Amino acid sequence: MSGATVRVEVAADSLFGPENMPYGVFAPPGGEFRVGVRLADSVLDLAVLLDDPVFARGELNSFLAQGPSRWRAVRDRLRELAETPLPTDAVHDLDSVRTVLPVQIGDYVDFYASIDHASNLGRLFRPDSEPLLPNWRHLPVGYHGRAGTIVVSGTSVIRPSGQRRIGTAPPEFGPSQRLDIEAELGFVVGAPSRQGEPVGVEAFAEHVFGVALVNDWSARDIQAWEYQPLGPFLGKSFATSLSAWITPLEALAHARVPLPDQDPVPLPYLHGTDDAGLDIDLTVAWNGEVVTRPPYARMYWSPAQMLAHLTANGASIRTGDLYASGTISGPEPDQRGSFIELSWGGAEPVVVGDDSRTFLADGDEVTITATAPGTAGRPIGLGEVRGRILAAHNT
Amino acid sequence: MSGATVRVEVAADSLFGPENMPYGVFAPPGGEFRVGVRLADSVLDLAVLLDDPVFARGELNSFLAQGPSRWRAVRDRLRELAETPLPTDAVHDLDSVRTVLPVQIGDYVDFYASIDHASNLGRLFRPDSEPLLPNWRHLPVGYHGRAGTIVVSGTSVIRPSGQRRIGTAPPEFGPSQRLDIEAELGFVVGAPSRQGEPVGVEAFAEHVFGVALVNDWSARDIQAWEYQPLGPFLGKSFATSLSAWITPLEALAHARVPLPDQDPVPLPYLHGTDDAGLDIDLTVAWNGEVVTRPPYARMYWSPAQMLAHLTANGASIRTGDLYASGTISGPEPDQRGSFIELSWGGAEPVVVGDDSRTFLADGDEVTITATAPGTAGRPIGLGEVRGRILAAHNT
Repeated sequence: MSGATVRVEVAADSLFGPENMPYGVFAPPGGEFRVGVRLADSVLDLAVLLDDPVFARGELNSFLAQGPSRWRAVRDRLRELAETPLPTDAVHDLDSVRTVLPVQIGDYVDFYASIDHASNLGRLFRPDSEPLLPNWRHLPVGYHGRAGTIVVSGTSVIRPSGQRRIGTAPPEFGPSQRLDIEAELGFVVGAPSRQGEPVGVEAFAEHVFGVALVNDWSARDIQAWEYQPLGPFLGKSFATSLSAWITPLEALAHARVPLPDQDPVPLPYLHGTDDAGLDIDLTVAWNGEVVTRPPYARMYWSPAQMLAHLTANGASIRTGDLYASGTISGPEPDQRGSFIELSWGGAEPVVVGDDSRTFLADGDEVTITATAPGTAGRPIGLGEVRGRILAAHNT
Repeated sequence: MSGATVRVEVAADSLFGPENMPYGVFAPPGGEFRVGVRLADSVLDLAVLLDDPVFARGELNSFLAQGPSRWRAVRDRLRELAETPLPTDAVHDLDSVRTVLPVQIGDYVDFYASIDHASNLGRLFRPDSEPLLPNWRHLPVGYHGRAGTIVVSGTSVIRPSGQRRIGTAPPEFGPSQRLDIEAELGFVVGAPSRQGEPVGVEAFAEHVFGVALVNDWSARDIQAWEYQPLGPFLGKSFATSLSAWITPLEALAHARVPLPDQDPVPLPYLHGTDDAGLDIDLTVAWNGEVVTRPPYARMYWSPAQMLAHLTANGASIRTGDLYASGTISGPEPDQRGSFIELSWGGAEPVVVGDDSRTFLADGDEVTITATAPGTAGRPIGLGEVRGRILAAHNT
């Protein structure tokens, strides 16, 4: 470590001030991957700054496994350091570093926690039935996704091929023609639990480390043909994008909001006296054009309820597990978090700059960003999740 | 290594002769976990015998990642060694060792490849509709399960609690009253693939290392209430049991059998000129009483077709991924691989010794074993999968 120091300048309107400082894994030019936090337009190298080998690793898992009192201690120390001159070799320009998937993900679960999204999809997929199935208001419906195909923001996504059936014609195989996004929030598990021991609503913050943005790419034609009776599989498993930066729960302390009314009142295992939603506003840009602004505050099931449900049967959680909210859609048309909803099943094209779209074209890029009330009287940003569609292989 | 040697005696009717030699991870008394193979009633310590650090590890993944030519070379060498006197410190009594989950599992996928099982479940879960849904004969239906709750054979399983609804009463929460098994075969991925690059039917043996027995414990009351529209979740995620021993594909070379007729002919991506089923006969014992004998040879979709489908959308596979066949049921009542089928939804109790059962009672033990034609003119055995039910917590 040289003796030179630098002070990180944080503009008054920065979304990434010291009250935010999300965690990621990055490599400086010519260096190895290690743990850092984002501060304004810089990345602080925790392996250098805190001189602890837990940060000199290409994943956050080892730190996350240390549990909430350690997370708090590190965050408190970083907030102090952020106000002081820092060694120059601990500070990198954000633009100069490479990021990778910040967490080695164990199991990936995706919920379906937006009542507006579930109602819209019900109308589109099952037009002759009640849009909400009978179980929806009684439990947070969810399913397991593919952990091994989760990629970090910025990774291109190859258009998947698969089976689909159009009308009553025989099924055919080919590149998806209804490639979609799902704008979601993801919750990263830090401290594990033991098999057989449910994690109650009140224990949420003892286990969940932080929040990330998720784009759960979805091939609607593949999904519609395959999904009964065992749920989505190849329509989702080709790729899921995760932001490079994980916002610690503590940074979202001022984003807590009351849950919408839940009717009927959930069973006791889904009930928590201090349970809350999160006032996080998402923005989805399609080729740079903002097409929708989904409000997380409208989600029916809380993050703590989702975790309590996930573990109610005794299923254990592991450090690095990820569970996502499902598509975030609000009640208004310009708050819908998927393109199948925005274009109403492809029937109503969406204006994207000088162009129009129903589903994703090759070369299209989608960027999801989000802000929330911060603890310093100004909003904080979540790390973006971005991806571009590449043409299908071999077709 | 001392100079003393021992020759492992293999009885003429042994199911675990040198033509079998499944792989597992074990610890000798007072020792660390390492890789071994089972030979007759002994376990050979590969870390000692082959003097390679890849075997001095508590998981098979590092060896599996080395790929099929290495798997063949090691197997050839072990078959030579099995005929010779071996150093005593490389040979342990099977009864003296502890086994653990042999593989660090990445993603776990469960298929639904038995036409008899899918038809039976359709009749039981959706009595007013066609038992087989329209997609079933066109693609191997599957979904992702929870990898983090897979346990090794011998691990007890705590009865899960969850939400279920009886008739039209409000849903309630409590210990599952319809706890079931699913007798399945599991396929362990050795060599990985790249995201975006499907693994065709012909490439099966280049990627899949071997076969294990799986018991996919299922809480039918939880499953029935939760599973629409996104598939099984908490009804399955509390525990899945895997045999401690993985039989390499090469040991099953003589178990290959033609697939049953597939009508309609599958799309080209599911078609392979040399594709085959496996003639493996399972036996399920309930508290020691054999209650059913599911025949794997009757499975509609082949192991290679399941892998080709799983990756057709470009989803990558990782070393340690596990995919299972789904419940193996034959056309006869005494070939059904789950108790919901055997007891026909609980309506027809099954005789278990002096007792009768519909679903699992606390204290019940289920053991699944299997045999297949071996390459030495006698059957080989698969490692058993066994588990006992413990009472639910906190109720």
